[in-house]
Amino acid sequence: MSQPNPLARLLTLWGEIVDLERTEGLLEWDQETVMPAKGVAGRGKLASTLARARHERLVSAELAEAIAAVREGAAPGSDQAAQAAEAERLAGRARKVPADLAAALAEAKSGALAAWQQARAEARFATFAPHLERLVALKKEEAAAVSGGARPYDALLDLYEPGSTEAALVPLFADLTARLAPLVEAVAASGTQIDESAVLGTFPAEVQRQLALEVLGAIGFDLEAGRLDPATHPFCIGIHGGDTRLTWRWQEDDLRPGLYGILHEGGHGLYEQGLPPAWERTPLGAAVSLGIHESQSRLWENHVGRGRPFLRWLLPRLRAHFPFFVGQRVERIWPVLHQVRPSLIRVEADEVTYNLHVAVRFEIERALFGGEVAVADLPATWDDLYGRFLGLRPGNAAEGVLQDIHWSLASFGYFPTYTLGTLAAAQLWQAAERDLPDLEEAIARGELSPLLGWLREHVHRWGSRWRPAELIERATGGPLSAEPFLAYVEATTREVYGLA
Amino acid sequence: MSQPNPLARLLTLWGEIVDLERTEGLLEWDQETVMPAKGVAGRGKLASTLARARHERLVSAELAEAIAAVREGAAPGSDQAAQAAEAERLAGRARKVPADLAAALAEAKSGALAAWQQARAEARFATFAPHLERLVALKKEEAAAVSGGARPYDALLDLYEPGSTEAALVPLFADLTARLAPLVEAVAASGTQIDESAVLGTFPAEVQRQLALEVLGAIGFDLEAGRLDPATHPFCIGIHGGDTRLTWRWQEDDLRPGLYGILHEGGHGLYEQGLPPAWERTPLGAAVSLGIHESQSRLWENHVGRGRPFLRWLLPRLRAHFPFFVGQRVERIWPVLHQVRPSLIRVEADEVTYNLHVAVRFEIERALFGGEVAVADLPATWDDLYGRFLGLRPGNAAEGVLQDIHWSLASFGYFPTYTLGTLAAAQLWQAAERDLPDLEEAIARGELSPLLGWLREHVHRWGSRWRPAELIERATGGPLSAEPFLAYVEATTREVYGLA
Repeated sequence: MSQPNPLARLLTLWGEIVDLERTEGLLEWDQETVMPAKGVAGRGKLASTLARARHERLVSAELAEAIAAVREGAAPGSDQAAQAAEAERLAGRARKVPADLAAALAEAKSGALAAWQQARAEARFATFAPHLERLVALKKEEAAAVSGGARPYDALLDLYEPGSTEAALVPLFADLTARLAPLVEAVAASGTQIDESAVLGTFPAEVQRQLALEVLGAIGFDLEAGRLDPATHPFCIGIHGGDTRLTWRWQEDDLRPGLYGILHEGGHGLYEQGLPPAWERTPLGAAVSLGIHESQSRLWENHVGRGRPFLRWLLPRLRAHFPFFVGQRVERIWPVLHQVRPSLIRVEADEVTYNLHVAVRFEIERALFGGEVAVADLPATWDDLYGRFLGLRPGNAAEGVLQDIHWSLASFGYFPTYTLGTLAAAQLWQAAERDLPDLEEAIARGELSPLLGWLREHVHRWGSRWRPAELIERATGGPLSAEPFLAYVEATTREVYGLA
Repeated sequence: MSQPNPLARLLTLWGEIVDLERTEGLLEWDQETVMPAKGVAGRGKLASTLARARHERLVSAELAEAIAAVREGAAPGSDQAAQAAEAERLAGRARKVPADLAAALAEAKSGALAAWQQARAEARFATFAPHLERLVALKKEEAAAVSGGARPYDALLDLYEPGSTEAALVPLFADLTARLAPLVEAVAASGTQIDESAVLGTFPAEVQRQLALEVLGAIGFDLEAGRLDPATHPFCIGIHGGDTRLTWRWQEDDLRPGLYGILHEGGHGLYEQGLPPAWERTPLGAAVSLGIHESQSRLWENHVGRGRPFLRWLLPRLRAHFPFFVGQRVERIWPVLHQVRPSLIRVEADEVTYNLHVAVRFEIERALFGGEVAVADLPATWDDLYGRFLGLRPGNAAEGVLQDIHWSLASFGYFPTYTLGTLAAAQLWQAAERDLPDLEEAIARGELSPLLGWLREHVHRWGSRWRPAELIERATGGPLSAEPFLAYVEATTREVYGLA
């Protein structure tokens, strides 16, 4: 009797799961970019059939046996063992969620999204509250099923950031808020107003698109293995090897949303394009976490894109595209990119206050899943936290507790990855600067391939081989810390606002 | 114990099969229109995983039981019985093909396509011949498995045109060739040369696109429930309700390919948009056959688009788009659209000789599957038939037996549907003229909704409720015949060439 290679068996089964997931991604891209308006109703059926076919495979006994067979034969610490462990992490989680619970969640979500849209339009939390109650209750059940009694919020965090825990996040956020809050106060106290006119003008869409393509080329995004399309929601999606798609929006009166949007999505795209081809369609072949993904977008958007070296390279190109920039100087543009201005809306926040928005959501989520706050109290809790962290109070629920879509999708535990990514970006940047002494001069010459090479080597090529915490430690020499990020924003903010 | 409604059970299972097939369609559209060049390798995996998931469902015992349960309870002749019969036609066929044979065919096809491409580039039949031998042998096996010993070619025809048989096609093609061949000879003997300058000029792509959109709007294609994109291969694909996509190409120096291409694909698109919403995702909800689909494209392309009433409506619009047409007259354009000119390449053929190209392929396919000709003899057989039907002899195999992709895809029995569609288009047009006495005057006024309404009522809304032969009989009052088409082309050709 022939003994099939257990790893080959596992990878065959896993490959199909990946193919279905990728196809779901393509459906999503299609819907966001090219699907005709009247296609909405029909599209939902396709997506749910694919999701069901994928779930069946993920929880199948056949897959469980294949994983067990690989685990049994693999040397501890080997790639094979890691393949089996990653497969088991995902399949085991799916297996633990009862089918009834999964169905109840799917149903609750579809109702919740519509209710949230209505609630936000009306600025009326009560419209959304019963749906949110139901989602929280179901997610608590899910967390209990998955974690077997550990702190429920940890089971939710783990879905987006494998291995992360509330216990590890609390001190990180504490460090952050303790140092960012006084920084924001000092900015306000300084009385300094930033002159934004250096980036406000008229920048036609088609010319911005040409600039965006030029920037993508410069940072090393392969446009023969990817696309750039306009869409209401900017995102990056890796369909499969050789096909990574970015979507993008811009403003014609302000250069920043388009330029920093393309650097952000381009950073995500470089990660997708750098995933290990040898592990394509295997458990280890995917991006390891949302936080690490976000670290790549933030690194290109902020540490490269808002830095003086990049601006020195960029300015002549801006002049070629827009007469507006003739006579403009880097030293007038740079401060505008480091403006600090507390606001109520997360997606419009600057790089300093952004993390305070995330801290509000982290506080609320852990209290919600720790049973320390009830859904009914969220608007007041939200407003109080905004007062405490940002010194502002929402005028209504639409610009307060109802502003984000995430909770209506039952994506609890997702928000912290934005900050984890921001912190990791700063730490990776610091490590790259240490390893590449010529980094800033190279960037000013438009040579971005050394940096990309460093990221390929230390982040991209590892796929899901190491958990996020271990990946950061291997790449930077130390555990994830808020310090590099704080040092970076404190330095830029002090310079821009002339603080002591 | 609850007894689930057997029809609901069948439709749930069938709906998933439809969803997977539709997703495969979307993958194909994506690959032909927007996929980045480097995505090719990764894309194949997605498509084959989906096809496998669909096939598993189609041959499942669960589906067979659901079909049987509906058959048992349904009144003969009812819609329910028809749902079960159509499901069984497709599932039964899939069940009869052994998995090994299906796998061998899939493998043989992928090799054959590459070999055909190379063979055509080299104009060397021997490069393709062994692959074609293998495909024919496997398709004979498939036909035998499916038909249980009936004439094997019938089992292949049935795949594209349910219910059609070689025995029924032979007299149709005999009528056609018997009357078209002398017509073509008479054209040659007339010595008349058509002046094509009325449609040859410079027609910029962007303006042609605007015209195409205007034409689509005029014929009633709903662009909020569809798209138009440029692509190398023009096609129409109905993804699902509310999402029908057309692809299209054009020539900047000749108005015809773009204009008649959009009418052709638009005709396909109107059929897809007119399928019965109540039967969406059910066996009866799909277009009934390739021949009926082609009848819709040919009707709009030829009977509407090449007719004087449409040209009278079109000409002022052409003038608005292209100064070229200022001073142009319908009577100078009309003859150019009815030119008859034997050629070697099917896809470039006029509406008269096109069917002679198809007749060549029909003769070859039935001889091949009847065992009367060997693959090795195909080049000579092909050249002889072109001599006989079109009076021309290919200079090499690339413009002869290797010109079509179909056989490399193992699509034997597909070609006849082109002619079936052409004949059906003429017969439907005749019936519509009879039922709508004001038809031509309405078209000249740009009122195309009465015609579309007639097609919706007699063709589109029936989905797969009636076999093609019955559909035609119900719509036109008689069985499919070559006579309406022959009467149409004989009349136009005699007028254009001044024949007796």
